Amino acid sequence: MKIAVSGKGGVGKTTIASALIKSFSETHQTVYAIDGDPDACLAAAIGIPAKMYAGIKPVVEMGEQIRSVSGGGAFYTLNPTIDDSVLEEFSHRHGNIIFMRMGDIKKGGSQCYCRENTFLQALVSLLLLDKNEAVIMDMGAGIEHLSRGTARGVDMMLVVVEPSRNSVNTAINVKKMASELGIERIRIVGNKIRSEKEREFIDKSFQPGEVLGFISFNNDIWENSMDPESPKAAVDLLEGMRDVREKILGEVGGF
Amino acid sequence: MKIAVSGKGGVGKTTIASALIKSFSETHQTVYAIDGDPDACLAAAIGIPAKMYAGIKPVVEMGEQIRSVSGGGAFYTLNPTIDDSVLEEFSHRHGNIIFMRMGDIKKGGSQCYCRENTFLQALVSLLLLDKNEAVIMDMGAGIEHLSRGTARGVDMMLVVVEPSRNSVNTAINVKKMASELGIERIRIVGNKIRSEKEREFIDKSFQPGEVLGFISFNNDIWENSMDPESPKAAVDLLEGMRDVREKILGEVGGF
Repeated sequence: MKIAVSGKGGVGKTTIASALIKSFSETHQTVYAIDGDPDACLAAAIGIPAKMYAGIKPVVEMGEQIRSVSGGGAFYTLNPTIDDSVLEEFSHRHGNIIFMRMGDIKKGGSQCYCRENTFLQALVSLLLLDKNEAVIMDMGAGIEHLSRGTARGVDMMLVVVEPSRNSVNTAINVKKMASELGIERIRIVGNKIRSEKEREFIDKSFQPGEVLGFISFNNDIWENSMDPESPKAAVDLLEGMRDVREKILGEVGGF
Repeated sequence: MKIAVSGKGGVGKTTIASALIKSFSETHQTVYAIDGDPDACLAAAIGIPAKMYAGIKPVVEMGEQIRSVSGGGAFYTLNPTIDDSVLEEFSHRHGNIIFMRMGDIKKGGSQCYCRENTFLQALVSLLLLDKNEAVIMDMGAGIEHLSRGTARGVDMMLVVVEPSRNSVNTAINVKKMASELGIERIRIVGNKIRSEKEREFIDKSFQPGEVLGFISFNNDIWENSMDPESPKAAVDLLEGMRDVREKILGEVGGF
């Protein structure tokens, strides 16, 4: 099962993705956690210390390595499966979570992240998963990863929204673009909910069955957000995400 | 004076940019408000109705038009000044604010926004301003507009942060990349401040003199964010931005 997490900047994509990763790590043998945002903080959110993070090679370099060895043909030589030893070199194992990151911070004015996105798309498409393995990708803010097609081939696009018109508008754009990418299941998670009115606002903005669940506004997350160390585990959040996980398994297929 | 507004997704870039645009429109004859984020809401924030917004041609199409007329040579034929009638075709006048947007929503999987960013950079560089004119650009979330160099040539990069470690980390990346781009003045605005502790957290994260001001957490903005119409003018916010404007004018030069 492969899931991409998307949405407007600041809605809590990384928080939701990390809670989902932790939740799936309870039920699945291996969870691949992939950070698709160069302005990244997924590693910290799942508890990987900053020092360790700095040493993890971005997967885009895997493409370069393969290219230099194969003398061209780019990353398609990955096919049909990705060699485990290569995967190991470009990932970090954290319990039963295998963390990977798309790309590194670049120099100002040096270039775009097109190559990184292209390689990530190929990598995720080619990952052959067992029934008890899952991939969760945290995408960049906004819509460019969709126009680029980075998440092509995932089983579900999970769009995080907060109770604001702008975040719903982004979600509507994401839905349209994800559907143009051929992604069949596009689902919503409402985040930072503080009242029944806010819950209803999100519920009414989408079709029946599209909204998988709601996560309450969590003051602890805000309070802890100045802490330089990894965020404190938000038990309530994880609880809410277990329900979402069960709904995802019901739709995409458990094991 | 040309200013780009940057920062992590969700910190309030568009809110701060729109308050700054309104504030400069009080002191300057013309303010160019440029939306550099394809997942856009700057137009709504400055009071342009959604219906009108849909009719505004993205500036990237200006490049195509010039290219098709000139038969190549791309947008450099714009040099040394941009013809007023062309500008008019690709902008919308709202009082003394001239609104422009970088690009449109694309089809899923169709392409990146590299061309849009390249053209926007050329356009903003070539805009020759009178002393009583200002350009405020609202950039996309995160750091890719910096690696692309979209804001090259602005007089100031204004980085919005909220009291969270992640938004400060993004600001530190933005500072480094903006400086690599050759932008000399990189300044911080603290947003969504709810306590003295939060204010201090931001103040201590940067060098003395870097932080231009603080904007308090504004519950009205949150409450109004579900409203489908343009946000209610937040008087407090505008008040705070007037102080920031004076500091900017002190640094970049008033008239």
